[in-house]
Amino acid sequence: MLLDRIKKANDIKQIPADKYEALAQEIRDFLIEKISVTGGHLGSNLGAVELTMALHLSLDLPEDKIVWDVGHQSYTHKLLTGRQAGFDTLRKYGGMAGFPKRNESDCDAFDTGHSSTSISAGLGLVGARDLCGLSHTVVSVIGDGALTGGMAYEALNNAGRLRSNFIIILNDNNMSISENVGGMPNYLQSIRTAEGYMDFKKGLEKALLRIPKGGSIVDTLKRYKSSFKQIFVPGMLFENMGITYLGPVDGHDIKQMVRLIKEAKKVDHAVIIHVQTTKGKGYEPAIRHPARFHGTEPFEIETGLPKNKRTKANYTDVFATVMNKLAARNERVVAVTAAMPDGTGLKRFRNMYPDRFFDVGIAEEHAVTFAAGLAAGGLIPVVAIYSSFLQRAYDQIIHDVCIQDLPVIFAIDRAGIVGSDGETHQGIFDLSYLSTVPNMHVMAPKNKWELSDMMKFAVTFGHPIAIRYPRGLAYDGLQEFRAPVELGKSELIYSGSKVALFAVGSMVKCALAVREKLAEHGIEATLINARFVKPFDEEAVRGLAKKHKFIVTMEENIADGGLGDGVRRLVSDEDLKLKVIGISLPDAYVEHGNVDILKKEVCIDEDSVTERILEAVEGKA
Amino acid sequence: MLLDRIKKANDIKQIPADKYEALAQEIRDFLIEKISVTGGHLGSNLGAVELTMALHLSLDLPEDKIVWDVGHQSYTHKLLTGRQAGFDTLRKYGGMAGFPKRNESDCDAFDTGHSSTSISAGLGLVGARDLCGLSHTVVSVIGDGALTGGMAYEALNNAGRLRSNFIIILNDNNMSISENVGGMPNYLQSIRTAEGYMDFKKGLEKALLRIPKGGSIVDTLKRYKSSFKQIFVPGMLFENMGITYLGPVDGHDIKQMVRLIKEAKKVDHAVIIHVQTTKGKGYEPAIRHPARFHGTEPFEIETGLPKNKRTKANYTDVFATVMNKLAARNERVVAVTAAMPDGTGLKRFRNMYPDRFFDVGIAEEHAVTFAAGLAAGGLIPVVAIYSSFLQRAYDQIIHDVCIQDLPVIFAIDRAGIVGSDGETHQGIFDLSYLSTVPNMHVMAPKNKWELSDMMKFAVTFGHPIAIRYPRGLAYDGLQEFRAPVELGKSELIYSGSKVALFAVGSMVKCALAVREKLAEHGIEATLINARFVKPFDEEAVRGLAKKHKFIVTMEENIADGGLGDGVRRLVSDEDLKLKVIGISLPDAYVEHGNVDILKKEVCIDEDSVTERILEAVEGKA
Repeated sequence: MLLDRIKKANDIKQIPADKYEALAQEIRDFLIEKISVTGGHLGSNLGAVELTMALHLSLDLPEDKIVWDVGHQSYTHKLLTGRQAGFDTLRKYGGMAGFPKRNESDCDAFDTGHSSTSISAGLGLVGARDLCGLSHTVVSVIGDGALTGGMAYEALNNAGRLRSNFIIILNDNNMSISENVGGMPNYLQSIRTAEGYMDFKKGLEKALLRIPKGGSIVDTLKRYKSSFKQIFVPGMLFENMGITYLGPVDGHDIKQMVRLIKEAKKVDHAVIIHVQTTKGKGYEPAIRHPARFHGTEPFEIETGLPKNKRTKANYTDVFATVMNKLAARNERVVAVTAAMPDGTGLKRFRNMYPDRFFDVGIAEEHAVTFAAGLAAGGLIPVVAIYSSFLQRAYDQIIHDVCIQDLPVIFAIDRAGIVGSDGETHQGIFDLSYLSTVPNMHVMAPKNKWELSDMMKFAVTFGHPIAIRYPRGLAYDGLQEFRAPVELGKSELIYSGSKVALFAVGSMVKCALAVREKLAEHGIEATLINARFVKPFDEEAVRGLAKKHKFIVTMEENIADGGLGDGVRRLVSDEDLKLKVIGISLPDAYVEHGNVDILKKEVCIDEDSVTERILEAVEGKA
Repeated sequence: MLLDRIKKANDIKQIPADKYEALAQEIRDFLIEKISVTGGHLGSNLGAVELTMALHLSLDLPEDKIVWDVGHQSYTHKLLTGRQAGFDTLRKYGGMAGFPKRNESDCDAFDTGHSSTSISAGLGLVGARDLCGLSHTVVSVIGDGALTGGMAYEALNNAGRLRSNFIIILNDNNMSISENVGGMPNYLQSIRTAEGYMDFKKGLEKALLRIPKGGSIVDTLKRYKSSFKQIFVPGMLFENMGITYLGPVDGHDIKQMVRLIKEAKKVDHAVIIHVQTTKGKGYEPAIRHPARFHGTEPFEIETGLPKNKRTKANYTDVFATVMNKLAARNERVVAVTAAMPDGTGLKRFRNMYPDRFFDVGIAEEHAVTFAAGLAAGGLIPVVAIYSSFLQRAYDQIIHDVCIQDLPVIFAIDRAGIVGSDGETHQGIFDLSYLSTVPNMHVMAPKNKWELSDMMKFAVTFGHPIAIRYPRGLAYDGLQEFRAPVELGKSELIYSGSKVALFAVGSMVKCALAVREKLAEHGIEATLINARFVKPFDEEAVRGLAKKHKFIVTMEENIADGGLGDGVRRLVSDEDLKLKVIGISLPDAYVEHGNVDILKKEVCIDEDSVTERILEAVEGKA
């Protein structure tokens, strides 16, 4: 095995050039085998094998710096920097992360996870290098999908005036997680097929050769070099911004890439190398089903089918179903996604209502303000988005949606602990940051039916409103509790005394189990499904003071600015005779791992919560 | 007066074409006269007079929609839609806003205030128009400065695939508030001077004419029309993205603009009209001092000098001074601004340390991640930014700075109520949204010396830290209180009993006055300068419980997730024998107006606070 000879960074340079192809094959086999067991990002990694090898052959790590945009394509980089053993614990609790981590290896120059940050971070590393008088190479590797994000453009705009070397690799596989959209991807596509340019070039040459002294015209043209370039060099959009363009180059041809990287290193300003790769390269199922193999569960290698077949609906499915129902009933309902038709479940809406579906690319800021525009024009837009990505649009929520009190609905998927993607993807801030926004309203459903009911409520509500729900299977318990959704009203599930559990969203299920455990200790707790975090049901809390000593607020969100803080404020301001026990997440990032393990770690599982309550009750009683 | 004949939208169409110039002059005179009294945005409005006239001549309002990016250039639009009288109360409490407001006029299609949102909002209005089967015209007017913001590019990327009409006016005055930076502005500059293109065109033509059958080559070239365009049409960067480019056109030539708008209306997809204007046009002082006349205080028309000369330093000045001192002592200190070298005071730093100064353009997201890259490379970046604009980078603070615990310093100007700019600019959320972020630290100084001390502390701190300070004069009282800044430690100002004022930042000055008023009522209150909001001084709060019944938290920030919520959480969790009185801003947007008036309105002035405390104390006593 060639791979066995690579124990640390730069070991790849000992492999003879005629073995590169064999090594690439070994890496692919390794990745497919490991990821088939652990799950993880497959397609993007299979596409970037040769590109990563070319980078490692051309650079000296850790002195040289590679910033991986998004970072899920860094598996080969991890392999080539001595982390082979880590793949057995990939994305497991305590195991190797699925993204670059500075605290995992000194070859990881910058942590990533969200899209479109790498050029900005790379420019920062370049600025620091230059001011410190150093001369290492800085490379940012960004996908064509990530290039639809505005941050990347802000960074390109700054890269264009750089006066020292900085290499941007455009890893162009012609897709985001799903297919790519917009003017920039179309532009890249035009380079890819290169018809316009090549036709023109051929036509011009033909015309010139047909006439006498044609050669001298070519010379004349060449004297006007920069303008000439704009005809013959495909990347003139980048050149126009002051960035040298090299390519396009076959992203599976290591020698060509090594040659271009060498050339790029000589440039005294920013240079972009346009590398064309195939997502899923070398594994048929990943090429055929790019969205499914973007981030995959464990699968059977031969068939590509998931090892564990899902039999129950997840919240995303429930959302997808209700969206289509709502759209059928009300033609003003439209849907917006930022490059996530698959992840958010909007694919079904797109297929049924293509004219009312808007995939804006990886562009959360635009998505939200665009939705505000749709709402100002009389429509009812539903922005389906992951919790951690909505952080990108915090200002747009304040500035464009809520100041104008526009009826935009935020369907926030992956809220709470998401598991194996780790720190960057945990959706644990949304209840807090959304609650800071005047005119915003925030709900979370206890189970799958409530998600439907809340969506129906939201569509008729007429003001900004957010519904957050977790990743994974939709809870199908408590079906018999289905009181109509009313603004700011909670739902009483079980009436008791002394202790009241005031739980929201995913924590209602937990509270049900806690209630049973408390019963074993002789405590007949009240259970209330809070439903609304903003505004939460103040009247219900006031009412509890009569028969209860304790109110236990339960939320899968940080403490600061969450439901518990709101309840404490009410209790404090009105001197309610209630002791608040706040169950929430600590003021810390939550790493990657199995969701159940993580919940125990941060003490929001049923045992921890029960224990916490018993301590308080017994300490006080 | 021609202006007197314009009482409502579309009245301008009754003015004969030969009077346009005279009307433009009247509008300029009107704006200069009014703004010299009220203060407001002058330069951008003087630059957009003819452009606005051309739009109003070409459109039917309110059916057609104009979205004004940022919106401070909408004064002529307000004049031409019957709001002449409003200019006497411009930006005053209860008076006319300085930005477009849907609740002010049905001719204001979308509220703006922050940069780079207009194309997104315009696309939303277009989407709604098309789905509703309507056919009005939608125009977004965006400046070249705003075009450095990533959102604008995200929107252009989507505009490129539109299949119906949408007009983007690029109002290119070659500056942001200060001069413009980056590849895109350079590109626009190259169109402006048009040398590259014109040289090439001339050279090619010359070469062709010198040879036999040159004409046939031109024909051949023309057959390859789209490629040909890329040589001869200046806006090919936009054309490459799928947007038709028209221009450049003189933005003070009404007839030319009307002609182009008419042409643009015929296009069945997105079209950009590149309009070149002169900021401050028609008023010499505004042309000479673009930054000062961007947003100006009342001024003498003849000289352009401010009516009220400032004799004391504001917080921005204090920040500017300490930055240069810190930079002199530590060469790792660098500064980052998003197009605000003047507003943030970093101009002095730029002049002294040009290599260590980074103006990234209007690009807050990039600014923060770029700073994270600088920090990862070993530098100590200070990001100087306004509170409401930092909202743009909430995700980047979480994802790029704080997960990696990088030593980025946020110097947050315009925190709290900023006054006449109104809802979009109030910096009233920062204590809350920053407190949600693990690894972040948040401070606010009581006076000018403390701002210096906090900056010094921040530079040696080694972790993410934010210092927020208000707009306007720096408080120079309490000079004798200058205890060393220590992480999470408050500063005792006056020791008393029964009532403790726990105030942060700008509210310390208010608390001092409240303390005096309470003394008149026989209450000798303790006064503590909280200094830190995250982590706040828990030990100090615990200590208060001995001698006090009341702790009054005072912050110029919304209640949700602020200092008061933190204190309530501690008091509740630890059963401290303290009644918390939370002084903060309501869960609402704060409109424009004089800061002192607004503070009374939201009850954070000394009288309101005193009253609130007395009610509580006397109610309980």
